[in-house]
Amino acid sequence: MPLLDIVFGRPMASKEERAEKIGAAAGIPIFGLDALSSAAYGPEAALTLLIPLGAAGIAYIMPISISIVVLLTILYFSYRQTIAAYPSGGGSYTVARENLGAGAGILAAAALMIDYVLTAAVGISAGVGALVSAVPSLQPHTLEICLGILFVVTIINLRGVREAGVAFMIPTYLFIGCLFTLLGIGAVKALLAGGHPMPVESLPAMPAASAAVGVWLLMKVFSSGCAAMTGVEAVSNGVKAFREPTAPNAQKTLTVIIALLMLLLLGIAYLAAAYHIAATDPNKNYESVLSMLLRAVVGKGIFYYVSIGSILLVLSLSANTAFADFPRLCRILAIDSYLPHSLASTGRRLVYSQGIIGLAVLTGLLLFLFGGVTDRLIPLYAVGAFLAFTLSQAGMVMHWWRQGGHWRSMLINGFGAFATAVTTMVVLAAKFLEGAWVTVLLIPLILILMIRVRHHYDSVREETATEDPADFQQLQPPLVISPIGGWNKISQSALRFAFKLSHEVRAVYVDVESEEISSAFCRRWRELAEVPAKEAGLPPPELVILPSPYRWILTPILEYVLKVEKENPSRQVVVVLPELVEHHWYHYFLHNQRAEILKTWLLLRGSQRIILVSVPWYLKA
Amino acid sequence: MPLLDIVFGRPMASKEERAEKIGAAAGIPIFGLDALSSAAYGPEAALTLLIPLGAAGIAYIMPISISIVVLLTILYFSYRQTIAAYPSGGGSYTVARENLGAGAGILAAAALMIDYVLTAAVGISAGVGALVSAVPSLQPHTLEICLGILFVVTIINLRGVREAGVAFMIPTYLFIGCLFTLLGIGAVKALLAGGHPMPVESLPAMPAASAAVGVWLLMKVFSSGCAAMTGVEAVSNGVKAFREPTAPNAQKTLTVIIALLMLLLLGIAYLAAAYHIAATDPNKNYESVLSMLLRAVVGKGIFYYVSIGSILLVLSLSANTAFADFPRLCRILAIDSYLPHSLASTGRRLVYSQGIIGLAVLTGLLLFLFGGVTDRLIPLYAVGAFLAFTLSQAGMVMHWWRQGGHWRSMLINGFGAFATAVTTMVVLAAKFLEGAWVTVLLIPLILILMIRVRHHYDSVREETATEDPADFQQLQPPLVISPIGGWNKISQSALRFAFKLSHEVRAVYVDVESEEISSAFCRRWRELAEVPAKEAGLPPPELVILPSPYRWILTPILEYVLKVEKENPSRQVVVVLPELVEHHWYHYFLHNQRAEILKTWLLLRGSQRIILVSVPWYLKA
Repeated sequence: MPLLDIVFGRPMASKEERAEKIGAAAGIPIFGLDALSSAAYGPEAALTLLIPLGAAGIAYIMPISISIVVLLTILYFSYRQTIAAYPSGGGSYTVARENLGAGAGILAAAALMIDYVLTAAVGISAGVGALVSAVPSLQPHTLEICLGILFVVTIINLRGVREAGVAFMIPTYLFIGCLFTLLGIGAVKALLAGGHPMPVESLPAMPAASAAVGVWLLMKVFSSGCAAMTGVEAVSNGVKAFREPTAPNAQKTLTVIIALLMLLLLGIAYLAAAYHIAATDPNKNYESVLSMLLRAVVGKGIFYYVSIGSILLVLSLSANTAFADFPRLCRILAIDSYLPHSLASTGRRLVYSQGIIGLAVLTGLLLFLFGGVTDRLIPLYAVGAFLAFTLSQAGMVMHWWRQGGHWRSMLINGFGAFATAVTTMVVLAAKFLEGAWVTVLLIPLILILMIRVRHHYDSVREETATEDPADFQQLQPPLVISPIGGWNKISQSALRFAFKLSHEVRAVYVDVESEEISSAFCRRWRELAEVPAKEAGLPPPELVILPSPYRWILTPILEYVLKVEKENPSRQVVVVLPELVEHHWYHYFLHNQRAEILKTWLLLRGSQRIILVSVPWYLKA
Repeated sequence: MPLLDIVFGRPMASKEERAEKIGAAAGIPIFGLDALSSAAYGPEAALTLLIPLGAAGIAYIMPISISIVVLLTILYFSYRQTIAAYPSGGGSYTVARENLGAGAGILAAAALMIDYVLTAAVGISAGVGALVSAVPSLQPHTLEICLGILFVVTIINLRGVREAGVAFMIPTYLFIGCLFTLLGIGAVKALLAGGHPMPVESLPAMPAASAAVGVWLLMKVFSSGCAAMTGVEAVSNGVKAFREPTAPNAQKTLTVIIALLMLLLLGIAYLAAAYHIAATDPNKNYESVLSMLLRAVVGKGIFYYVSIGSILLVLSLSANTAFADFPRLCRILAIDSYLPHSLASTGRRLVYSQGIIGLAVLTGLLLFLFGGVTDRLIPLYAVGAFLAFTLSQAGMVMHWWRQGGHWRSMLINGFGAFATAVTTMVVLAAKFLEGAWVTVLLIPLILILMIRVRHHYDSVREETATEDPADFQQLQPPLVISPIGGWNKISQSALRFAFKLSHEVRAVYVDVESEEISSAFCRRWRELAEVPAKEAGLPPPELVILPSPYRWILTPILEYVLKVEKENPSRQVVVVLPELVEHHWYHYFLHNQRAEILKTWLLLRGSQRIILVSVPWYLKA
C-alpha cells in the first residue's frame, strides 16, 4: 500500500461522490462544532468585561445572554429561509452576489475568508490555552502543540468529509452530554434550594466593584459575547454536503445546533447568577467559568476531569468547521474566477485539497505570528462574520423583493439584516482599537486581489477564446534549427527528426575552444551530413558556426534563434534540442542541463513563432 | 553595471587569457603563501612536542630543523626537474599517471585533493585561532569569522588569478619583511652577545623535564614539523599560470619560496635556542613562539603589533594556495573524465569557478564540523601531501628511465622518492591514531567515486559515439498526439502545427466532468476540426476521449501516449503540447503547469521514440 494511501486514504472515483454525503446527525459535529464550542468562551468573554462592576455585574449576564439568544433566534429564522432558497449552497457570497451584485458578493467572501482563518486559529489556540492552564508544564510548547493539532486536523480533512464527521462526532457528543448533565444537575439543585444553592466547593471571592455600569460597557460586553455566534453561517454554506433531501436535512441540523447553543448560553448564564460565579482575572490565579461552575455543582471528581477534557478536545477541534467551509468558499470563488482555478478541482479523496492546504498554511501563519495566544486573536474576530451576515440577509431581502409577494419572508430577513448590521457596527466600534482595524485593513486588500485575479482570467479568455473552426490551409513548413555539440548518435537522431519537420535545416555549432577545432568540424560536416542528405534527395543541412568569445554556449544559440525569427517574420522557427535522459538521479550532476536551460530561456524570451522540440536520448548506462 | 559584474568583475573574453598570466614576483604570494606561512606554525608544532623534555628539549630544535631543511632541499631539486619536464603543469597526478599508470595517478590526485581542502581549512582556522588568542572577546565567534574569511577568499578567487595575486602580495611581503627584520636584529644581538643575548622582556619560565628523549618522540617532533612542507607541490602544479617562458619563471618562484622558507625555519630555530624559548602549553597561558621571539628581540612595541598582524593575515590567507590549485587539479581530473565535466569549463572570469565553489563548500563543511579549531585538523594534515610527493617522485624516476641516460636526474628524483616515502610512513605512523586514519579511510572512497564517474562517461561515450555519416533515407512521418483541454486559439495553433509534422494527428481530450460535456465536444469536433481538414485536403484529425474516473488529467494522457508508442513499435510518436507562457511571475499560480509536468513525466517514463513539442502561447495580459 503506497504511503500516500495510508496517510490520506485510497483515491476515490468521481462516482463515489454520492456516498460521501452526510445526514443530520453527522452534520452537527461537522458544521456545528464551531458554534457549540463557543459556549465555552462566549459567556466567559462577556463575564470578563463585567469584572469591574463587582458582585453587581453578575446581574447583567442574564439580560446580555437573553439579548444574544434573541439575535440568534433572528439569525436562525433568516438562515432557515436561506437554506430553503439556496439548496445548492447559500453562503453569504452566493446570496449577496446573486441579489446585490458581484461587489457585495466578494465583499462578503473576503469578510468570511478572514473569519474562517480566525475560527481555525482561535479554536486551536483556545483549546491549547485551556490545556496548558491545566498542565502548566506544557506552557513553553504552546505554539508547537497548536501547530501539531493543526497538522492532525489538516490530515483528517484531507482524508475527506465523512471520515472527518466520524472523527469529530464522539468528542462533540461527549461535550454536549457533559454540559447538559452539568446544567441539569445544577438547575435541579438550584430549584430545590429555592434559587440560592450552596456550591459543593468554595469559589473565588467576588471582585470588588471599581466602576459603575454604562451603555458603552454593556456594548462591549455584548460584542464579546457575540463571539459565540460566528459559526452560524456554516450550515447554509455547506448544504451541498447533505444527503437528499438536502435542504430539510440541513435545516434540521441548523435547528439542533442553534437550539443546543441557546440552551447552553442560557443555562450557563442562569447557573452563573445562581451560584454567584464571576469571571477571574485572566492574568492572575485564572480559572475558567466552566471550571468554576463544574466545581460548584458537582465538585472536582471524575466527572469534572471528563468534562474539562471534552471541552479541551472540542475547542481545539472546532477549527474543523473552518476546514469544512473555507475550501468550499474558495471553490465557489475559483469557479467564478476570483481565485486561482486550481482551488476548484477536487482532490484524490473528493475534497478540495488545495483549499484545505491553503487554510492550513494561513492558520499556521496566524498562530505563528500571534504565538498561539487566544487573547491577541479574539479582537480580530466576529467583525468579518457579522459583515457577511448583514450582506447575506440584505441579499435575501432583495431575493424576496424580486420574487414578489413574500412579505413575511422579506420581513424576517429584513429584520435579520437590520439586527446584524447594528451588531456589526457595535462590534466594530467596541473592538476597533483592540484589533478589528486589522480586519478593516485586510478586507480591501483581499478585494483588490480577487478583482485583479478575475481581471486576468477575463483577459486571457478574451485573448484565446474562439468559436471559429480551425484553419488548416497553407501549412508552410517551418525553418528548423538544431544546436549540436559534436558528432554522435544523439546529434544524428536530432538531425534525422529535423528533416521530418522541414527540408530547411540548420545545425548550429558554438565555437568555444579554438578555430582549428571548428574548422575541422566544418570539413567533416560535408561527408557526415551534406552527402547523405543529397543521396536521400534532400537539400543539404547548413552548418552555422557561432563564435563565443566569452565561452558561453547558450547565449549565442539563443541570440541566433531570435535573430532568425526576426529575419523570417512570416515563418515558424522550430528549435530541435537533443536531450540526454539519465536513468539515475545521481547522474544528473555528470551531464550539463543545457537543453533544459535553453528551453526555459527560449520560452521566456521567445515568441509564438518559436516552437521547441525535445528529442530525448535515453542512456542505457 | 550589473550586480554580478561589481562583485565578480566584468566577464572576460577567451583571448584575454594571455594577459592573465603571472610573473615570478606575483607567483610567490599565489603559490607560496601556504609554504611561507607554515613557518608560523611548523617550528611551533615541533617545539610543542619537545615540552616534556624541559630545558634540554631546546637543544633538539636545531637538528630537527636542519633535517627538515635537508628534506626540503631534496624536494626542491626534485620539483625543479618536474617543472622543467612538465612545462604545461606537472602536478603529482599528471606525473604519476603518465609514468606509473592511471591508478597511481588518481591515488595521488585523491591524496592531494584531501590535502588542499585541509590547507584551506587549517590556514583559515590557524589565522582565526591566532586572532582570537589576541582578542579573546572574539572567541565565541570563531566559526563565524572562519566562514566570513572563507567567503572573502572565495569571492577574490572567483574574480580571477591576477586580482588574487595583487590582493595577497602586500600581506605576504609585509610578513616576509617583518620576519626577516626580526631574524636580522635577533642574529646581530645574539652574535654581539657571544651567542647568549638577554631578552628585552622577560619570557615564561622553562618547563620542567618530565620525560627522557627517545626515537619515537623525535619521530613525532619531525612529523609535526613536516606540516611546514605541504605547500611545495603548488608551483609545479600551476606552471601553466606563469608568463612565458613558463618553466624558468616557475623555477625562479620555487627557488625563492624554498629559500625563504629554509631561512625562516633555520632562523627561528637558531633564535629560539639562543633566547631559550620553549613552546608553551596550548591549553594554559598560551603564547605563540613567534610572539615570544618578537617580545624577546624587540619588545612589545609598534613592530610587535605590525608583525603579529601580518602573521594573522598571512595565515588566514594561506588558504589561497589551495584555491589556486584545487580547481586546476579538478579541471585536469574532469578532462580525464574522473570528475564531472563541468569542472573543466572556465568561468566568466577565466577561472575554474566550479572548482573554486566546490573547494569553498568542502572547506566550509570541514570548518563547520571541526568548529574552526586548528588543533583538531592538524593530525589529518600532511599524510596526503607526502603520499602525493612520493608518487610524483617515483613517477619522475620512471620518466627518466624511459627517456634513458638521465642518470643524474634519475638519482635526484629517486632520492626524493625514497626520502618522501620514508617521511610518509613516519608521519602516518606518528599521527595515525590522532586523525591520519580519516585520510586513510577517505582516499579509497574518493578513488571509488572517481573510478565510477570515469566508468559512466566511458559507457556514455561508447553508447553514443559514431563516426558514421547520418542516414536520411526513408524518413517516415511520425504519429502526432496533441492533448487539448477545450476549443480555443491555443489548441487551434497546436493542431495547426501538428499537421505540419504529419498527416496522422490525434487530439486527446480527458473527460473529467461528465459524459454530456465530452459528447457535446465530440459533436462540435466535426465542424471545428474535421471539416476544415477535409477542405484543406488533409485526413481528418481523430478525437480520442479518455475517461478519468479519478479526475486525473495527466495520468490518462501519459498512459495513452505509452500505449500508442507500444502499439507502433517502428514509428516515432510526437506529443504536441500547447503551452501558456505568462509574462509575470505572479501569474504562475493562476495557471496550471500541466504542460511542464507532462513533459517531465514523458521524459522520465518515455522512450527514444517519443518526441516532445512545446507550442508556446504568449499571454498579452
